[in-house]
Amino acid sequence: MTGKDQAPAVRGGLFVTLEGCDGCGKTTQLGLLQGALVREGYDVLCLREPGGTPISEAIRALLLDPAHAEMAPECELLLFEASRAQLVRERIEPALAAGQVVLCDRFYDSTTAYQMAARGLDAEQVHRANELGSCGVTPDLTLVLDLDPGVALARATGSGADRMEGEGTAFQAKVRAAFLDLAEREPQRVRLVDADVAPAQVHERVLGLVHAALASCVTEGLRP
Amino acid sequence: MTGKDQAPAVRGGLFVTLEGCDGCGKTTQLGLLQGALVREGYDVLCLREPGGTPISEAIRALLLDPAHAEMAPECELLLFEASRAQLVRERIEPALAAGQVVLCDRFYDSTTAYQMAARGLDAEQVHRANELGSCGVTPDLTLVLDLDPGVALARATGSGADRMEGEGTAFQAKVRAAFLDLAEREPQRVRLVDADVAPAQVHERVLGLVHAALASCVTEGLRP
Repeated sequence: MTGKDQAPAVRGGLFVTLEGCDGCGKTTQLGLLQGALVREGYDVLCLREPGGTPISEAIRALLLDPAHAEMAPECELLLFEASRAQLVRERIEPALAAGQVVLCDRFYDSTTAYQMAARGLDAEQVHRANELGSCGVTPDLTLVLDLDPGVALARATGSGADRMEGEGTAFQAKVRAAFLDLAEREPQRVRLVDADVAPAQVHERVLGLVHAALASCVTEGLRP
Repeated sequence: MTGKDQAPAVRGGLFVTLEGCDGCGKTTQLGLLQGALVREGYDVLCLREPGGTPISEAIRALLLDPAHAEMAPECELLLFEASRAQLVRERIEPALAAGQVVLCDRFYDSTTAYQMAARGLDAEQVHRANELGSCGVTPDLTLVLDLDPGVALARATGSGADRMEGEGTAFQAKVRAAFLDLAEREPQRVRLVDADVAPAQVHERVLGLVHAALASCVTEGLRP
């Protein structure tokens, strides 16, 4: 494809989420993926969780404030879901309905990994909360950028770690294990991408997986 | 009972919630009830929802901000539950464990009435959300101050209605109907109190119901 007006329409849109430990390279890969898809002519919406709407960003600020160390795990879980519900209703659903490709930095798999596996909340509770927060919307494709937590944390931050990043390597190891488990349980939707190679190589693999997903839901000539 | 040191201990504490439409007189009655119980020697904790902890108050500010008119019903629901979870874990559970009488201005029945009945959210969804937000804690006694929504709204506010109070009489009528339905379905826990009489009369009825609840869970001489 050579120009924006030649891109195929995406029937019902395509919803792709990027997941992984802090410092796994999600932000870099999201930027590269967005650039490539836009160059191919797709109509792309790029979002991040928690955030992406004024209300969701206000919730994000509350969640990541290091002053809120006394936050109960159940409160944390429900704040993530509240932020998600607003993002789904205000941005994701309309974009998918318009046939856009929606890329999201984290979605409910992060809640499973962080709140259930790492905070020790009950699996059924987290599953129910995810159902509420996602308003029933499921990603078509979830890419887990997999990286050793030690490497990831060293990459993630120097100073100024937020409330989540301040949790340390043992916490991140549990998060990684949870993502690996998700990939095993939902192999069609959740795909692992080795993130311990050069960004260009990670991008190549990411783009290949997204192209495959697009191939199954494009309709030539029906671009809105 | 004549002095604070003569009050009986409350085994496992007592959790009393006050419910009703905006303007039904909850705040006045809560103050009168708290005063009476403290004079009788009970150790009383008085809370309001959403709020009661620094994190819950921050969520309250977000919920009631008239600037957030675009808030999705699911987001609103989950924010109320997040605020509630923090209140339960940080204040209510420790107070009940210490044998205190906990009085709370609104709890999960307000969520049922406002989010389900008035916003039209799915009953099962709201029920699940209430389970998550309450962390499994149920009031021992819930007093619904029942009042015609027209009378209540006129009382509630002159200027400066917040995002909830700005909804009008039709909305409040649905809220009232939901509270009446709750009282019918859970007659042991949820008691109706006619709020269209003088505050002193309402207080007399409220105090009578609370005394009856206390009678079933006090242990003479075991005050902590």
